[in-house]
Amino acid sequence: MQFNPNQKLSAIAKMINAEFDGDPDFLIKGINEIHKVQHGDITFVDHPKYYDKALKSNASTIIINKKINRPNGKALIYSNDPFRDFVKLIKKFRPFQPASSIISPTATIGEGTTIQPNVFVGNHVKIGKNCLIHSNTSIYDHSIIGDNVIIHSGAVIGADGFYFKRRPDYQDKLESGGKVVIEDHVEIGACCTIDRGVTGDTIIGWGSKMDNHIHIGHDCEIGKRCLFAAQVGISGCVTVEDDVILWGQVGVQKDLTIGKGAVVLGQSGIAKSLKGGTAYFGSPVQEARKKMKEIAALKKLPEIFKKL
Amino acid sequence: MQFNPNQKLSAIAKMINAEFDGDPDFLIKGINEIHKVQHGDITFVDHPKYYDKALKSNASTIIINKKINRPNGKALIYSNDPFRDFVKLIKKFRPFQPASSIISPTATIGEGTTIQPNVFVGNHVKIGKNCLIHSNTSIYDHSIIGDNVIIHSGAVIGADGFYFKRRPDYQDKLESGGKVVIEDHVEIGACCTIDRGVTGDTIIGWGSKMDNHIHIGHDCEIGKRCLFAAQVGISGCVTVEDDVILWGQVGVQKDLTIGKGAVVLGQSGIAKSLKGGTAYFGSPVQEARKKMKEIAALKKLPEIFKKL
Amino acid sequence: MQFNPNQKLSAIAKMINAEFDGDPDFLIKGINEIHKVQHGDITFVDHPKYYDKALKSNASTIIINKKINRPNGKALIYSNDPFRDFVKLIKKFRPFQPASSIISPTATIGEGTTIQPNVFVGNHVKIGKNCLIHSNTSIYDHSIIGDNVIIHSGAVIGADGFYFKRRPDYQDKLESGGKVVIEDHVEIGACCTIDRGVTGDTIIGWGSKMDNHIHIGHDCEIGKRCLFAAQVGISGCVTVEDDVILWGQVGVQKDLTIGKGAVVLGQSGIAKSLKGGTAYFGSPVQEARKKMKEIAALKKLPEIFKKL
Repeated sequence: MQFNPNQKLSAIAKMINAEFDGDPDFLIKGINEIHKVQHGDITFVDHPKYYDKALKSNASTIIINKKINRPNGKALIYSNDPFRDFVKLIKKFRPFQPASSIISPTATIGEGTTIQPNVFVGNHVKIGKNCLIHSNTSIYDHSIIGDNVIIHSGAVIGADGFYFKRRPDYQDKLESGGKVVIEDHVEIGACCTIDRGVTGDTIIGWGSKMDNHIHIGHDCEIGKRCLFAAQVGISGCVTVEDDVILWGQVGVQKDLTIGKGAVVLGQSGIAKSLKGGTAYFGSPVQEARKKMKEIAALKKLPEIFKKL
Repeated sequence: MQFNPNQKLSAIAKMINAEFDGDPDFLIKGINEIHKVQHGDITFVDHPKYYDKALKSNASTIIINKKINRPNGKALIYSNDPFRDFVKLIKKFRPFQPASSIISPTATIGEGTTIQPNVFVGNHVKIGKNCLIHSNTSIYDHSIIGDNVIIHSGAVIGADGFYFKRRPDYQDKLESGGKVVIEDHVEIGACCTIDRGVTGDTIIGWGSKMDNHIHIGHDCEIGKRCLFAAQVGISGCVTVEDDVILWGQVGVQKDLTIGKGAVVLGQSGIAKSLKGGTAYFGSPVQEARKKMKEIAALKKLPEIFKKL
Repeated sequence: MQFNPNQKLSAIAKMINAEFDGDPDFLIKGINEIHKVQHGDITFVDHPKYYDKALKSNASTIIINKKINRPNGKALIYSNDPFRDFVKLIKKFRPFQPASSIISPTATIGEGTTIQPNVFVGNHVKIGKNCLIHSNTSIYDHSIIGDNVIIHSGAVIGADGFYFKRRPDYQDKLESGGKVVIEDHVEIGACCTIDRGVTGDTIIGWGSKMDNHIHIGHDCEIGKRCLFAAQVGISGCVTVEDDVILWGQVGVQKDLTIGKGAVVLGQSGIAKSLKGGTAYFGSPVQEARKKMKEIAALKKLPEIFKKL
């Protein structure tokens, strides 16, 4: 849980000038969008397609743009623009704090950790023991980095998620209030970007190793001992299980799961979830042995057409 | 117009030790290569294939490597190496100025704008109001950034265009003298690079949003409200009209136009101009619905070959 | 040769607590992994598949995990974990030295070279004359940069190679002890990463030009006058001969050679060595004229299937 508003329903509703349905003293413990929502959280829904999902989720309070029957044990806040009002809450409870120095006085840095020159360490960042943070790295506010982590130059940890809602005249931003968590023994290559969760955590699991120029979107959960080669790009809310290998320039669409031990060959484009323990190739991706057969067949095609 | 030489034809010709044909007092107002040339400008042409284009362009003065009949109302400068002499002029009127400080005293920064630590702001840069420039960003000389712009860490605004002329023994650089213009309400992701125009402007239009690791080549003009996902790469001199969506890792060749509202799926490779309002996919790109049929057909091919 | 241990066989064996077979006074001049090994060097081998290659290589001393007959003129060191012990030697002879300042006092910088703000220059770095190093660039220890080199902002020169050995429970890192060598008249684009050799040199040849976001893996040797467009990614130990052109987003697998003057079209994926003087396209790559025929044939396929 990123935020600890610990505010009463009536107080939260007042912040966004909205009516509510529920016990005014009902406690709102966290703020999370639908992918990350936990018991006690407030979330929002603004499209009839997702009403059911939101109402049946773990969320205890839902900001919604339709008057409906309140589900048992939950609270509702009525808003004509739940997205706008949810963003308002994120900004209230997790406002951007400009840096007061290159390494924030509120950051904690463990014993034996080396911070090279020109590294920016934001507010409330925690870096563990025996890490090596190379020059010109940027670590945004609230990031948590474990022990024995290496981060190479130019990497950016904790930039905002890329999450916009199309309005008639502009792209409206879902402010990111989440954070990045990097577990022990991870290595992050030069010029990698690990975006923070929009409301939850983006997690790089124990002992995973990333080559250069890798992009990990908001709210991804990367397992343990994964190996990602250079220029891999992963969209938001992707789950990569343990021991997955992605070769260079692989791209992954949002909201997918890649199963434990899967191996994906270079330049593949992943548009659906993949079972573990298998090798994949192609854009769009398939099992590698199937794709190889297609490639072989396609090679023969021009000659066959010529004969016909 | 990037440069304001406001020099007479005779003076410009003297700078490059060249003969000229025209009124010695003819005024040269700007310097632009052929893609960006405007009335009053000087440009160059060194290949017979492009003589006609140059002579019929808006250019008022043309550096050319052949004696020809001077078109009405224009001036000519004769050079045995127009490329070399054009570069000489760029260097003369837009010489590189080493930085005297991390934020140049000649930069102007609007009210309410936050500049995080380790940001480099070059000479004559203008940044508008209420912007947020994150740590370790580099903003080269002459860049112009509007109001309410967010630039994430590690982004590089205004590096030189990638534009070389093959000489027998080396790659000869067309020096970049142009600039980057970022309009209001744009967001630029971490580690993005927006190259400046070689003589004109690279423009990121109002309200466009870019994810991380995006490359925008020299002299591109990106429209309003575009959304580019991570690791998109766009070559030089590309026009992207308003409301275009490019998904992750899309690549675009130079000198193309992508029409208003086009949507291009991930990893597509765009080698020709695209009409607006349509979805595209593939490398090389096609209309998505056609490409999907090809993909379905190819899947059946190995089985069919086996039967034959 | 990166390291000059100039230590006797007996002393080296003692450092890793290992038995040896050979003249105790046998001189070990360098330390190199198998791809880069030279006469006088020590290397390691830990898999029976590569025993023969290692024993027949130029290496004068081999750390090996099996007792075998010592080849004439060579020395052997027996280890139950040659990888671990080889890493131990790299760490001993090339330990990481934390920076004492933004530009190391042990770095040498040539006349006429401009270093823009926020550039990190590591220990023992050499930069030649008339270079221009743009802001927020990171140059790791021991890098060697020639004359008239331009490096754009955010580039990272000399980060560790991506080279891991899979252990049952973790990914074990082959520490990088090599360096980067950038020859004269090279231009490196913004946010490029050039990894150092794990034990040898990563070389960017005379006059080669790189656009933005390019990744060059450890121990690559890039020839002269090459042109790489944006977002090209090259794995470790690749040889690119002179005058090669790689268009945008091309990916290259490890241990390959791309022949002189080859041209590879955008987004191609190179999984085998390529002969020079030819144009290529596709993922996996083929000669461009063959690939174009396949693409044309594939376009007809849905229509043909419909008729059948």
